[in-house]
Amino acid sequence: MGTYKIKSRLWLEQEGESLMGEGTLLLLKTIDEEGSLSKAAQKLNLSYKKAWKLADNLNKTSNNTIITKQIGGKNGGGMQITEYGRKLIAKFEEIRESCWAFLNEKQEELNRI
Amino acid sequence: MGTYKIKSRLWLEQEGESLMGEGTLLLLKTIDEEGSLSKAAQKLNLSYKKAWKLADNLNKTSNNTIITKQIGGKNGGGMQITEYGRKLIAKFEEIRESCWAFLNEKQEELNRI
Repeated sequence: MGTYKIKSRLWLEQEGESLMGEGTLLLLKTIDEEGSLSKAAQKLNLSYKKAWKLADNLNKTSNNTIITKQIGGKNGGGMQITEYGRKLIAKFEEIRESCWAFLNEKQEELNRI
Repeated sequence: MGTYKIKSRLWLEQEGESLMGEGTLLLLKTIDEEGSLSKAAQKLNLSYKKAWKLADNLNKTSNNTIITKQIGGKNGGGMQITEYGRKLIAKFEEIRESCWAFLNEKQEELNRI
């Protein structure tokens, strides 16, 4: 007799369009760390084109800008996550965590069958 | 400004092996309705071989038998879902529903960002 585990995958949609899932979340967090889309793409083994499309789709689908391109200055040309983007990431991660906790409780019920 | 929706996909695993997800759940419910694996496969546009593999994997991965083959009698050769299988299906569906309700509440928080 083994133990059943409940697994989940969450993502956000806006008007039927996928906005943020595991892949996009990882890309956003990596852009935030690296301060650059090309470095983030390289780290995640994505083509720059693919990463750019994900980032572009994100900005187009969300209610507010999530990624901005910094112009000029010391880090000119870099990409940054906006304050709104950070809030959205944090909320999505918080919801994901609480969903896992919720499902862990339910898992016990399942294993009592 | 649109409304973000949180979408989820749930599945059960046993020792790292996938046991039941949306596809398997639908197959089980259809076998239960049709009383036959071949009729269920036909209805779902699955090959008999694919449906048989799903059913066989289910029995091998679960803690108890979920699908049995009826031998002889009026419906000889048909497939049936065991009492245990029905309980597992019902619990999985109940958990899925409660997870949707949980995420719907969270969705409001997300849209207040």
